[in-house]
Amino acid sequence: MSTIKVLVWNEGVHERTQSEIAEIYPDGIHGAIASGLAELLGSAVTVQTAVLSDPEHGLSADVLEQTDVLLWWGHIAHDEVSDEVVERVRQRVLGGMGLLVLHSGHFSKIFTRLLGTTCSLAWRNDGERELVWTAAGRHPIAEGVDHPIIIDKQEMYGEPFDIPTPDDVVFISSFSGGEVFRSGVTFTRGRGRIFYFSPGDQEYPVYFHPQVRRVLANGVRWAAEPALAAPNAMPTVSNPERGWFEKQPHRS
Amino acid sequence: MSTIKVLVWNEGVHERTQSEIAEIYPDGIHGAIASGLAELLGSAVTVQTAVLSDPEHGLSADVLEQTDVLLWWGHIAHDEVSDEVVERVRQRVLGGMGLLVLHSGHFSKIFTRLLGTTCSLAWRNDGERELVWTAAGRHPIAEGVDHPIIIDKQEMYGEPFDIPTPDDVVFISSFSGGEVFRSGVTFTRGRGRIFYFSPGDQEYPVYFHPQVRRVLANGVRWAAEPALAAPNAMPTVSNPERGWFEKQPHRS
Amino acid sequence: MSTIKVLVWNEGVHERTQSEIAEIYPDGIHGAIASGLAELLGSAVTVQTAVLSDPEHGLSADVLEQTDVLLWWGHIAHDEVSDEVVERVRQRVLGGMGLLVLHSGHFSKIFTRLLGTTCSLAWRNDGERELVWTAAGRHPIAEGVDHPIIIDKQEMYGEPFDIPTPDDVVFISSFSGGEVFRSGVTFTRGRGRIFYFSPGDQEYPVYFHPQVRRVLANGVRWAAEPALAAPNAMPTVSNPERGWFEKQPHRS
Amino acid sequence: MSTIKVLVWNEGVHERTQSEIAEIYPDGIHGAIASGLAELLGSAVTVQTAVLSDPEHGLSADVLEQTDVLLWWGHIAHDEVSDEVVERVRQRVLGGMGLLVLHSGHFSKIFTRLLGTTCSLAWRNDGERELVWTAAGRHPIAEGVDHPIIIDKQEMYGEPFDIPTPDDVVFISSFSGGEVFRSGVTFTRGRGRIFYFSPGDQEYPVYFHPQVRRVLANGVRWAAEPALAAPNAMPTVSNPERGWFEKQPHRS
Repeated sequence: MSTIKVLVWNEGVHERTQSEIAEIYPDGIHGAIASGLAELLGSAVTVQTAVLSDPEHGLSADVLEQTDVLLWWGHIAHDEVSDEVVERVRQRVLGGMGLLVLHSGHFSKIFTRLLGTTCSLAWRNDGERELVWTAAGRHPIAEGVDHPIIIDKQEMYGEPFDIPTPDDVVFISSFSGGEVFRSGVTFTRGRGRIFYFSPGDQEYPVYFHPQVRRVLANGVRWAAEPALAAPNAMPTVSNPERGWFEKQPHRS
Repeated sequence: MSTIKVLVWNEGVHERTQSEIAEIYPDGIHGAIASGLAELLGSAVTVQTAVLSDPEHGLSADVLEQTDVLLWWGHIAHDEVSDEVVERVRQRVLGGMGLLVLHSGHFSKIFTRLLGTTCSLAWRNDGERELVWTAAGRHPIAEGVDHPIIIDKQEMYGEPFDIPTPDDVVFISSFSGGEVFRSGVTFTRGRGRIFYFSPGDQEYPVYFHPQVRRVLANGVRWAAEPALAAPNAMPTVSNPERGWFEKQPHRS
Repeated sequence: MSTIKVLVWNEGVHERTQSEIAEIYPDGIHGAIASGLAELLGSAVTVQTAVLSDPEHGLSADVLEQTDVLLWWGHIAHDEVSDEVVERVRQRVLGGMGLLVLHSGHFSKIFTRLLGTTCSLAWRNDGERELVWTAAGRHPIAEGVDHPIIIDKQEMYGEPFDIPTPDDVVFISSFSGGEVFRSGVTFTRGRGRIFYFSPGDQEYPVYFHPQVRRVLANGVRWAAEPALAAPNAMPTVSNPERGWFEKQPHRS
Repeated sequence: MSTIKVLVWNEGVHERTQSEIAEIYPDGIHGAIASGLAELLGSAVTVQTAVLSDPEHGLSADVLEQTDVLLWWGHIAHDEVSDEVVERVRQRVLGGMGLLVLHSGHFSKIFTRLLGTTCSLAWRNDGERELVWTAAGRHPIAEGVDHPIIIDKQEMYGEPFDIPTPDDVVFISSFSGGEVFRSGVTFTRGRGRIFYFSPGDQEYPVYFHPQVRRVLANGVRWAAEPALAAPNAMPTVSNPERGWFEKQPHRS
């Protein structure tokens, strides 16, 4: 199997501007995620990172051409991501690049643009225990994952989560306060696979949690499949003449 | 709009054999459900009831022909329901009759036969508070329903719930113990609409809860639509000659 | 049941600039569609029309507030529709307004914005016979519709059609040349129902076909349900305190 | 990657009783399918075959325990398959074994039992050309497959096909007579993946068609994934005490 080329993108603002968050994530949220993927997937992946302040946000056409799976973390700077870059990423996803959208990335331009809905939800930051239950144990993303994952302190995300009907609801979370949330959901758009996973917040060390790392590693492997199977290719319009297929050589 | 002919079916064993349950449901679980539907839907429905001990379990071909929506409650006597009656009900559902399967009915012959999976789940009877959250507020079954419904004491049902991917996950519950459950899910099989709703247990007066009654009333209206739109008709095989449709009169 | 307020939108360019198309649709494509809805739905609807050249394309906030279901026909002027209007329509759909997207509207801004994919397809304008087969006879949109609908001359639209997995594939078409197309598909986005229906082209009098009119009338009734059930309301974010629901009065 | 253990099951009646069919399939339909899989998948698979007349139809518990993916071809002898064996196969599928159901197997006990619907359709045996179009090019089963596959002579299968909404409609066929059919559809039931593929009839040498063989080979690889990922395990009921998960050792 080919090596999966992974790019972890993070807006990287909290870590620069809030010392208490820099203490939790000394290498940035992207650094924590990247180290988890490298640790769990080893030689099956190469992992790069990029942040908002990089030229073109670190998401040039060249970089995207070298990316099989993109992970996206953003929160307070969604609006600062350029529309041009978002459209570039969108086209790449439709062409087969995998996309993992994390936590507050539910409100990112790329996620709402690909899904079309508001992606709004209920939230409360009160350090509650989150239990992440597997609803689709057969899904590759759930492989080897605790049922439930116990996260001692987390921001609460609650229903209603305004997303289109997912292909699969892999995980459902409950919180100490009683709320529930579809915390792990998958979508297919064009040739691309998308996985949204909500656990993970700048104020809690969630991306060091072994089980959260396991989920992200599984997600990367699952989302990489189209990119490994065929070159990136956006769906396009065609205008064939009648009977065109009778003139084609048949492949065997 | 035509009157919806509703039949509430209950195995009716607990109420006959356990006095403490007869006290909670003096008219049977079916009686409680039927009175709720009559109260909320009024002249839009006629409501009948039937129990396991009736001849043919009260589910003769004649009765089913007079039924637009069937509600099903069973628990300890699933195996006593005759296969012939189950097949009759199944065919009627495929032909367009609505079906609401309630609580422990997840293990009924009719539900597992229509869905094909084990329909297994986790459970615990410890009088926990259940919160029923709406995940699909746009669905007719969620109309006018509290978010969340608070049920003070309930049996816990938890994931994984082994069902095929539902058309819609309308409700998701959490319990005091932290578990979660897809407590309101819809399916379409043949021409029939199926709604499974888990809140409701023989040991707790859940079927008197105004919001649970609201959900069941909404469910009945939603599941009745195919039956009101066209006569019951099971999908069948056809063997048309080539070009048959060119010889048909076109309707306008 | 309340009257359904319908707005038929058409870019209305072909009819102004090509006399042969003005002959087919002397009252515009919007006029033909509107007359079909009025004829079939009678007092159940009020039908208005609007075109691209109207102020704000005839889609002001006031007009949209008075619209339960919007039909959209566009082709050569998609780019001339203002982004601001598209966003206004999108928000209204997410809030519960029904949307029927017709034929070449697959490439409209509003459709691709709501779905997130390219919505590309194969096409050929060669006056082929289209047969529209019902794949989901149980769906309200298929009620009373011929199986198949026979359209003597039509533009061919073929797979692959790059859309997210639909809620329901109601119709599948074949063409004389052998191609197939998912010609009637439904989606839910936010609180809104969306129906895409491909038969209908400026060069053929398809919108006078009694069966095509039947499908559109059924589509309007189906898509109107959320708007008739509750006021338009976009999903929004909330930030409730812990235990907030225990302090709410319970509705019954 | 582990070797995929494949079992090709065929009722094997036509080949024994009709000489013209024995001429088309001298090694049986199962033999033709098995040779195609061996040719295309090589050392990635071991391929066994079994027929109705074998003891326990060749589907003993021991054999099924050694099977990752089962292919099923049946037609005139569906009723002769024992209910006990069907239940054994069903449990194995729910536990993670892949299942490919072929052509007239749409009416097999195992397929209708797993799906719950009638699985009825329209049909006509008139040697028509079938064109198999890819509707989901991103699906692993469509990888490297002609668009369209051209099958010169085939039995026609047409809509409506009474199945639950599939996870994916991978292929849609058209026939010379104009009918259409969802000819390649996927389902998940329990931990098992199911692929139904209609091209393939005893009267035509369809299972020697290189592209049909490609589809079946892709289907086997796709359906094998759960079996390769984890031991077969039917979903089961659990009855945990409150807080049980707090007492578990956490895995990392």
